[in-house]
This record gives sequence, structure tokens and C-alpha cells, in this order.
Amino acid sequence: MDPEAFLEMANQVTKLKMYPYFDIAHCTLCCLYVRDDLGTGSLPFSRKHPLANWLSCMLTIFAGGLLANFLLGEPILGALKNNQQLLLATAVWYVIFYSPFDVGYKVAKFLPIKVLLSAMKEVYRVKKISDGVTHAAKVFPNGYLSMILIGTIKGNGSGFLKIIERLMRGVWTPAAVEVMQPTFPTKASIAAALIFVMDKKTDLISAPHALVYFGICIFFVYFKLSSLLLGIHDPFVPFENLFCAIFLGGIWDSLAHTLAGKKGAAAEKGGEAVKNGNGKNKKD
Amino acid sequence: MDPEAFLEMANQVTKLKMYPYFDIAHCTLCCLYVRDDLGTGSLPFSRKHPLANWLSCMLTIFAGGLLANFLLGEPILGALKNNQQLLLATAVWYVIFYSPFDVGYKVAKFLPIKVLLSAMKEVYRVKKISDGVTHAAKVFPNGYLSMILIGTIKGNGSGFLKIIERLMRGVWTPAAVEVMQPTFPTKASIAAALIFVMDKKTDLISAPHALVYFGICIFFVYFKLSSLLLGIHDPFVPFENLFCAIFLGGIWDSLAHTLAGKKGAAAEKGGEAVKNGNGKNKKD
Amino acid sequence: MDPEAFLEMANQVTKLKMYPYFDIAHCTLCCLYVRDDLGTGSLPFSRKHPLANWLSCMLTIFAGGLLANFLLGEPILGALKNNQQLLLATAVWYVIFYSPFDVGYKVAKFLPIKVLLSAMKEVYRVKKISDGVTHAAKVFPNGYLSMILIGTIKGNGSGFLKIIERLMRGVWTPAAVEVMQPTFPTKASIAAALIFVMDKKTDLISAPHALVYFGICIFFVYFKLSSLLLGIHDPFVPFENLFCAIFLGGIWDSLAHTLAGKKGAAAEKGGEAVKNGNGKNKKD
Repeated sequence: MDPEAFLEMANQVTKLKMYPYFDIAHCTLCCLYVRDDLGTGSLPFSRKHPLANWLSCMLTIFAGGLLANFLLGEPILGALKNNQQLLLATAVWYVIFYSPFDVGYKVAKFLPIKVLLSAMKEVYRVKKISDGVTHAAKVFPNGYLSMILIGTIKGNGSGFLKIIERLMRGVWTPAAVEVMQPTFPTKASIAAALIFVMDKKTDLISAPHALVYFGICIFFVYFKLSSLLLGIHDPFVPFENLFCAIFLGGIWDSLAHTLAGKKGAAAEKGGEAVKNGNGKNKKD
Repeated sequence: MDPEAFLEMANQVTKLKMYPYFDIAHCTLCCLYVRDDLGTGSLPFSRKHPLANWLSCMLTIFAGGLLANFLLGEPILGALKNNQQLLLATAVWYVIFYSPFDVGYKVAKFLPIKVLLSAMKEVYRVKKISDGVTHAAKVFPNGYLSMILIGTIKGNGSGFLKIIERLMRGVWTPAAVEVMQPTFPTKASIAAALIFVMDKKTDLISAPHALVYFGICIFFVYFKLSSLLLGIHDPFVPFENLFCAIFLGGIWDSLAHTLAGKKGAAAEKGGEAVKNGNGKNKKD
Repeated sequence: MDPEAFLEMANQVTKLKMYPYFDIAHCTLCCLYVRDDLGTGSLPFSRKHPLANWLSCMLTIFAGGLLANFLLGEPILGALKNNQQLLLATAVWYVIFYSPFDVGYKVAKFLPIKVLLSAMKEVYRVKKISDGVTHAAKVFPNGYLSMILIGTIKGNGSGFLKIIERLMRGVWTPAAVEVMQPTFPTKASIAAALIFVMDKKTDLISAPHALVYFGICIFFVYFKLSSLLLGIHDPFVPFENLFCAIFLGGIWDSLAHTLAGKKGAAAEKGGEAVKNGNGKNKKD
């Protein structure tokens, strides 16, 4: 492929208009997520508690903006000030939950359509991460951690708001906080935010911004499709395990365990505990 | 009644000074609410945990302002910056919980006094809803949803902060979130906020503002007194049921159920679930 | 001791540079606290959930700033904008949790070192209370309650954020809210904030500011060392009991109980309840 044409294409991807098609994809997947999270009781729940249901969906859809505004000291409701987006989100919510004979839900669950929507949502996600990093850089020009945090939250806000969103439905699941078991979208958003910060603030990346952006888009879409179609869930795991082994105590624990082992059976119990700690090391 | 004199009266109602009498009514009812929420253990609790008790009451009294400031990105503690109101609230809290021989509590619970306080609190509520809508309109001139939200929260803030307020007392009741089972004050506040927004932003309401305001006041006081004296609790229920049946799937579910019924006993179980969903439809 | 030299010394204490030594003391004690809060499972947890662990420690270390920014309507992430402090905190976290053979933890737990760190942390605490009061006074010049609140939160933020910090680790302990059973640091921070407000806003305290500041420092360090070395935990208890007995119903309850006792055995049960309430009065 001609590099010039490739760069041109990358440029166009960075300027893609999100409203309304990508917004629709995002809203649809968020509503599907809420409905699936409700489980078998989703339809009765949506009939009995439409207000909680609507609020729950809106929290999921606008999670990134709400949380980012909260952390940056801006009006939280600013995330809802665009009436067009709000109407669109409400329309999608209505179609997913209340369409006659559940047509809307069934169409959105149809695999080819779901794959298309998922791919579009990933492009939307990259756009939001990039916007988040830019936004945070305006508020805190040297706050590298803030940039990464806001980028990550914009990218996977619904993950972080999940426990609040469930609370709106009267369900409290404190063990489901995102940071305990970060999901793939969170990890990928952290990585993407990191790359955007490096691209923006340092000279380490010499490629043009559009190319970086396009590369990240391809990465997100590729792994989403792998996950949907092939069942590959988390390409970060091997790197994490390596990192944990080297920096977060893995090797030293093994060494300590070996030394303790030599000291005989008396210290056996303590060593077992350390071994268990290592054994479970694979999960971040 | 002379229309001119009526309008004049309405005008005076819109300009009623809230401090101190209406503030006292509001504080008294909030403290009574906290004390009743504590149940039979309220007196021992107030002796053992005065700080949690005081904070809990303040959260209930200033709930609307705190939550509205939070959502509009303003300093949350701004709701507490009026020292006079704060002293008044603390004095009322002290009288309700610590007066000798529990005189304060018994007086406030005496029906005629409680009726008077409740009526005053409803006038106060309308004032706060109106102020909330005006405030939100200043921050987000086109944020209709934000205006309604802030109006509702100013009107019934203690309902929305209830789970946080209980948390301050060490009690966690996630199932008691307001949006799951909105109470009458919440529904009425939504309706009032909606009318204020329509009055402010559209030409649909041709009556003068003072008249609209006065009408809403009368509505709130009337239904509060009905609820206290006659036991009528929620005049919105029939409208909700109608709305749910037409728009939120009621009719389609019945139709689907009927069609499913024709298909015989095999699909019976699924149909039962849908039927249950409809049966519980009466509660929003 | 020469008063002039004493005042000079007090002046120098008010101008002490906090970075990096006092910061290190604060970070170390916060990380130790998180590790002890994790209990026996702390090492396996730190290996399995490094992200939650890190976030948990950062929340504890920067608790005061985060919470104060939240309540004053400033960007919450502003508390994390100092990259040097953040790096320092991360380094300390790493040493406490992941140093080979757990050397970092063992050194920090060694009593003489712990005593030194604790004393430094108390000086740091006084500095933060003073800064908090000054900061709140800028935002709300007449908000006396806000000043005391912000001072207290800056002084013992980790206590108030404890339930959120635990939530980050997937543990939810609603009964552990600070206001239910305020710990000594919270009570002392309230007292110190009160004195700073009086010093700043009234003429009641005629001593120079540096002397007041130095006196509070000595008070904090003295009681921390007493608590660590002698096991004296809360010098406020007798004053609280007196205050509760006089103002918060103690005497009236006894009187009511006595009168009820005279009325005979019929009312015995109710009296018992009041008595129990008084009996537990010792805990605030």
C-alpha cells in the first residue's frame, strides 16, 4: 500500500465524525450490557422500575464523561448537556428494552450486527481516550498520571462506574470494583493513554500523530474481533506475568521460598502461603 | 374571588421570606425523619454517637444544596456557608434529640403542629424547586434534563441522599435507593420541575409565573395534607399505569403473552414470567 | 529557656520544609497502615492485585487533599498533580510491599524507627491542618464550619476515606465510618482546627501564631508518643463524658430514669433502656 495514501487514510480516521453512527453503536452496546447484567429478570425489571433502568443505562452510556468531569472538578452534569446525544441514548434504550416482541434486542444481538457495532465502539473508544488525554493535559499540563487516569476512564468509564450503576438498580457488589480485576478494555485503555501521553509530551514517538492514532484503532478493533470471534481474551497476560515476576516480588518470593525450604519442615507452613501467592500470580 | 387580588396574593407567595420560620419547619421535619428512621434505638444512639447523629441530620437538612452543588461542579460545602442557617439547624437538632423529658420531640409530633410544619415545608419545597431550576438554567442554558434533575434534587434531596445519610450512621441499605421506588415527593418534584422548565423556556404556559408558582404550591400543600389526614398517598399511580401500559411495553407484553398462550403448554413457563412482570407493573 | 529563643524555634518549626523527609514518614506510615489492614493476606494480595493495592495506598496517602478538593469544588486530581510527591509515594509503596525478603517492611516496623516516623508524621499533620484551615478560609471567608471540617479532613483524611479505600480492595465495611467512632487523630484534628480558626478569625488568642502552631505540634507529638510507648489512647474521653452528661441528655436522662423508677415496676423496662443508653455513654 502506498504510504502517502495510508497516511491520508489515517488522517481521515482521526477526523471521523462520531455523531450519530458511532454514538448509536456505543449506546446500543451499553444498553445490551445493562440488560445482560440484569440477567433473566431484565424484562420484568424494566417494566417495574423504568426510572432506575433508564438512569442505569444513562450512567453506563455517559460513564466516562461523568467520571472525568467529577475528577477534573468540572460540572458533572456537563456530560449530559448535549440534548441530541441524550435523545439518541434514550431512543436506543427504548428500542433495546421496550420494542414490540423484543425486536430491537434480538437484532442487536444478531452476531454480524454485534460484530459491526463492537468494531465501531472500539473506534469510538480510541477517540474518547485521545480526547480525555488532551482534556486532562489542558487542566494539568504536567499531570502525567492525571492524563493517563482520565484517558483510561474515558475509554472504559462504564467499568469503573459499574458498582454505582448497579447501586442505582438496588444491587451492591463491592467485590466487583474494576481495579481488583481490571478487564481487557481497561488494560488496553491504560496502554493507549500511555502511548498518547508519550506522543504528546515527549519525543520518544517520532511517527505522526495520525499514524499513532490509526495504529491504536487497529489494535483495539483487532483484539475486540479476536475476542468476539476467536475467544482470545487478554493478550496482556504474558507481559503482566513477566513484569510481576521481575518487579513485583515474584523472583524474590521464590528465592525466599527456596531458602525457607532448606530450613526444614518447621517453616513449611509459611512457605506454603508464599507459594500460593505465586501460584495465583497470573491474575493481575 | 377578585382575579386581581388573587394574582396579588400569588405574587406575595413567590416573594415569601423563608428564613427563619420555613427553615425551622424544614429542619424540624428532617430531624423527625432521622429520629424515626433510627427506630426504637434513636435515643441510645443519639447519646452514644452525637457526632454521627448531628452529621446525619445536617446531611438530611442540606441534602438538596449539597447534591445540587456536587452535580453542578460548585463547592459542595457552599451549601453550609450560611452560618445562621447552620446554627438554626443545629438548634432544632438539639431540641428534637436532647430536650429535657423529650419535650421537643413530643411537641413536634403533636398532630396539629406537625400538619402546620408539613404545610410550611411544602411551600419551602416549591421555592427550592424553583430556585434549583433557575440555578441549573444559569449553568446549562439548554440543559433541560439538568434543570429537571436539579429541580427534583433540590425538592427532595433527602430522598436521594438517604443511603449516604444512613451510611454516616453505619447502616448500609443499597436496596433503598430512591430511583428504584420513587416516593410521592420525588414524583411531584419531577412534575413541578417540568412545569417550571416549560414556564421558563417555552411559550406553552401563558399564565404569569406567579400564578404557576402559586398553583404548584397549592397542589403540594393539598396532597401533603391529604396524605397526612386522609391517607391518600400517590395520585400519580393511575397516570403511571396508563403510561407504562401504552409506552413501556404493557400492551405489547400482553399481546406477546396471548400469542405465546396459543402456542400451547410448551412455552407456558416463559409466558408466566411475562405475566408476573405485568402483574407487578403497578409499581413504578 | 530564653523566651526569645523559644519563639525563634517556634518560628522555624512553622517554616519547616516538608519535602522529602516528612513526606516519606507520612507515606511509610500510610502504607504500613494499608498493609496491616490487609491482615495476614497482605503479601498474597499485593502479588495478585498490584493495581488495587497501589490505588489503595495512594488513596490513603493523598486522602486529605482528595477529600478537601472534593468538598471545596476544586479538581480532585489536583491532589495528585505534584509528580515528585507521587513518585516518592510510589517508591515508598514499592519498598514496603515488594522489597526483597520484606526488608522494607521490617525496617519500618522496627520500634525506634516507627517512633521517629510517627513523630514526624504528627508534625506533618499539624502543617496540613493549618494549611487546610487557611485554604478553606480563602474559599469561604465566613464559613467557620467549613474551615474546621477541611482542617479535620486534611489532618486525618485517611480515616474518612477508609471505607472508600477498602472498597478499592473489594472490601465493604459500612460500620467502620469514622464519624460513628471518631478516633483520637480525628478528635485532636478537630480541636487543632478549632484553635487555628480562633487564632485566625478572632482575638481570643493573643499569643503569636508561631507559638500556637508550635504548642499544637508538641501536643500531637506528645500524645502520639504516649500512645505508642505508654498505651494512653484518648485523653479526650473525660471531657467528652462531662460534655455529654451536661449537654447531651446525660443528666436529664438520669432524672427521667429516677422519676420513672418512682412510678414503680410497670415502667421498669423502659427505664432499663435509658439506663443502658447512659451506661454506654462513655464512648462518643
